[in-house]
Amino acid sequence: MEHLRRNIPHVPVILDAKRGDIGSTAEQYAREAFERYGADAVTLSPFMGFDSVQPYLKYEGKGAFLLCRTSNPGGDDLQSQRLSTVPGEPLLYEHVARLAQGPWNLNGQLGLVVGATYPAEIERVRQVAPHVPLLIPGVGAQGGDAVATAKAGWRPDAPIAVNSSRAILYASSGEDFAEAARREAMKTRDLLQAARG
Amino acid sequence: MEHLRRNIPHVPVILDAKRGDIGSTAEQYAREAFERYGADAVTLSPFMGFDSVQPYLKYEGKGAFLLCRTSNPGGDDLQSQRLSTVPGEPLLYEHVARLAQGPWNLNGQLGLVVGATYPAEIERVRQVAPHVPLLIPGVGAQGGDAVATAKAGWRPDAPIAVNSSRAILYASSGEDFAEAARREAMKTRDLLQAARG
Repeated sequence: MEHLRRNIPHVPVILDAKRGDIGSTAEQYAREAFERYGADAVTLSPFMGFDSVQPYLKYEGKGAFLLCRTSNPGGDDLQSQRLSTVPGEPLLYEHVARLAQGPWNLNGQLGLVVGATYPAEIERVRQVAPHVPLLIPGVGAQGGDAVATAKAGWRPDAPIAVNSSRAILYASSGEDFAEAARREAMKTRDLLQAARG
Repeated sequence: MEHLRRNIPHVPVILDAKRGDIGSTAEQYAREAFERYGADAVTLSPFMGFDSVQPYLKYEGKGAFLLCRTSNPGGDDLQSQRLSTVPGEPLLYEHVARLAQGPWNLNGQLGLVVGATYPAEIERVRQVAPHVPLLIPGVGAQGGDAVATAKAGWRPDAPIAVNSSRAILYASSGEDFAEAARREAMKTRDLLQAARG
């Protein structure tokens, strides 16, 4: 973190910690993320409910991205089940999107994690939560389509952060690893910029 | 961990890490929990589905407790919603209990986390998942009733682990903290033993 802050202070750092714990523990995890590591945002699981999210919202200027429709194959095991006890009977991930757009979003600090591997679900999330930032993993090693992703998620007034991790980190295992990682990162960026139009 | 293993090797250690991440990351978190820390079991969030749980099941003799009905006030925000797309239309936590009892429990390594603050839900979980171990936090500082908890969860053939954390850790802030913690731990243990009958 010290290296990042010194060398690229303008780049936001999102700690993909996927925390989710009771309030008293969440308070300490929030301290860890924002005070100890100095991250700008953190990823959280919504499974334990609002009081597991609220402590992070006390940090002004910091963000929290809730897992919504994740990029992995088992993401739909629970996230795509329909909730008959919630008005409108949304799928679980649609309900999480609605909570992040509305009632849980006390100070506009919430965003959502939606996998690049499911562009149709990104569009659906955008219908329910048009104004929150999206963190979109799954481009690269996980096979997500960068162009379809940007088209589905990008809005002029609601940013998206598309991240490719392994495809860049492990672009080469040879001596040229730094140059290969840079090349892969630039390629992904150019693709995304073009898709945004 | 080294201290615990040296001094109380017969006491199992459950790492309450509440992990939940895609398969490739879960593999590394499983290594961390079982190889680096040498824990006997770990707690996991089921929100990201089976492939976020499976890597932990490759460690023979190790356990994984899935968050099911958690002890915090917001636990029912999502966990108590009814799933109309699952046969029998269970609540989300009942569905997680069923997955842990059956299809996800490849080698009998799964257990469930059910809060002591909700004895009625512990009974319900026991109906759906009669044979898996339960990890039951929420006794002590969180206000759970140790006696009601043991009555609801204990089965001769399916162990429960009831844990009180803050009430014991912070039993005293004075010089007598060790003795006070011991007293509180023994008191909780006696209560639980008596409730088991």
